[in-house]
Amino acid sequence: MIGQWQQQYGERIDAALRQALDRLDSLAPTLRDAMEYGLLQGGKRVRPMLVYATAGLTPDADEQAQDAAAAAIECIHAYSLIHDDLPAMDNDDLRRGKPTVHKAFDEATAILAGDALQTLAFELLSDAAGALPAERKLQLVRELATASGYRGMCGGQALDIYHEGKPVERATLERIHRHKTGALIRAAVRLGALCSPTMQEAELAALSRYAEAIGLAFQVQDDILDITASTATLGKTQGKDEIQQKSTYPALLGLDGARELARQLHRDALAALAGLPCNTDTLEAFAHYIVQREY
Amino acid sequence: MIGQWQQQYGERIDAALRQALDRLDSLAPTLRDAMEYGLLQGGKRVRPMLVYATAGLTPDADEQAQDAAAAAIECIHAYSLIHDDLPAMDNDDLRRGKPTVHKAFDEATAILAGDALQTLAFELLSDAAGALPAERKLQLVRELATASGYRGMCGGQALDIYHEGKPVERATLERIHRHKTGALIRAAVRLGALCSPTMQEAELAALSRYAEAIGLAFQVQDDILDITASTATLGKTQGKDEIQQKSTYPALLGLDGARELARQLHRDALAALAGLPCNTDTLEAFAHYIVQREY
Repeated sequence: MIGQWQQQYGERIDAALRQALDRLDSLAPTLRDAMEYGLLQGGKRVRPMLVYATAGLTPDADEQAQDAAAAAIECIHAYSLIHDDLPAMDNDDLRRGKPTVHKAFDEATAILAGDALQTLAFELLSDAAGALPAERKLQLVRELATASGYRGMCGGQALDIYHEGKPVERATLERIHRHKTGALIRAAVRLGALCSPTMQEAELAALSRYAEAIGLAFQVQDDILDITASTATLGKTQGKDEIQQKSTYPALLGLDGARELARQLHRDALAALAGLPCNTDTLEAFAHYIVQREY
Repeated sequence: MIGQWQQQYGERIDAALRQALDRLDSLAPTLRDAMEYGLLQGGKRVRPMLVYATAGLTPDADEQAQDAAAAAIECIHAYSLIHDDLPAMDNDDLRRGKPTVHKAFDEATAILAGDALQTLAFELLSDAAGALPAERKLQLVRELATASGYRGMCGGQALDIYHEGKPVERATLERIHRHKTGALIRAAVRLGALCSPTMQEAELAALSRYAEAIGLAFQVQDDILDITASTATLGKTQGKDEIQQKSTYPALLGLDGARELARQLHRDALAALAGLPCNTDTLEAFAHYIVQREY
């Protein structure tokens, strides 16, 4: 299913990311190369896909705002991976089977590349062309900032670090993931929805519930795959979570319990979509993919 | 003179920064503490002062936008210092006579605190209350993003690193400083100016020229002080630039040549203000301070 999405949105995503990188002039070529390496090294592009798929629910979603939002959220995701991989954080040498940015370049460049990719995200959103009212564009900036910062991704990452090697309860694990990865998945869906100038509050709320469910399901499935999949398939060191004594859903609930939770979240996601007055096939398919994916 | 400014704006700046930190809930207390430590450990607050002083030129500058802009630009400045001090960058243990963030906390927390302070800046600007039109608020975000990222501060920082230990020409040194420190000084003045909904393009251009001159003068004076002032006065290891073989203006032009350059930039700054149809005493006083300061 993700293959179909990749076919549908892949070229457009690549073009949006390319266009974002084209803003970078010749000032600091090594930094630019590191930013490009980190941004383009070929992830699954889940967040930009969600932007486009959600925007696709409404006929009046602004096209240029979609491109800006898709590129911006991938910039934030890429920056977070670059910084997470640093020696002082997860100390990873490989990401998707290739050297991480601080390995391919150096640590100082990796820190700066992450910093500048974060800034680029806000530059893209605040500079988006298109017909969306300025008030709405400002809201896009606000959504992304809230989801990325202390009250979102960064805070979740900090929570995760401080609980490393300690036993955590399920509520804490959920709080970590709802912030660390969930906030950005939620933002992807909301940014896509907000590209429509006529988006209604009730629909936005339903889409947010959908996003929260798939965001957590994505993490639960990640935990499951970390145990069941091989290193070759994942492109990262398998069982790494276990080595680092991170708490995971399988550790808390058992493998079967974690699988049941993923299925429940899948049902929650579909239930959230049920009341929407439009064809939600693409978002339903994405929810299926989340719990069925094997890498 | 800076003392007078501190008297005039100090309380308001402290309040604006406090209000910014109050947005951080109890999610990740250590991260919040590190952000607060990095933001409040008491710098000279040059950038927020410039925001307020420039906004003070016009009677209709929006008060709430000024507070948001002042806090936002100090968040960017604080984040850049936290990351610059990291072992992989300048590897500084002291900042203003106190342990740097990665010393007072740890490296991972310092990386995240910098990241989250950058995000907070954009959250503050995009969420600013007040009567400024949304289009103008969006412009504030754009100004700060452009000045902070690859085409501004981050790019300048990268340039600086890549030229470390190599002889550079004056044009290169100027390019480094115009980006690394100049871009944010310029943004401070422009953000302050743009808080006035009636700000004219010609006045904004003159203020930008003023800011570019004092921004570079600030750096030239920094280089001079690094040689002439004692460690105790500066609160950092004196002569560190020399130890790291960084190119400096005194190294390129001699101490007298560097002092003459600072005076020339001072004259440029005053010339840029001369044509403005308002009382520019505060900005003139700031230009004097830049070249006369002893720490």
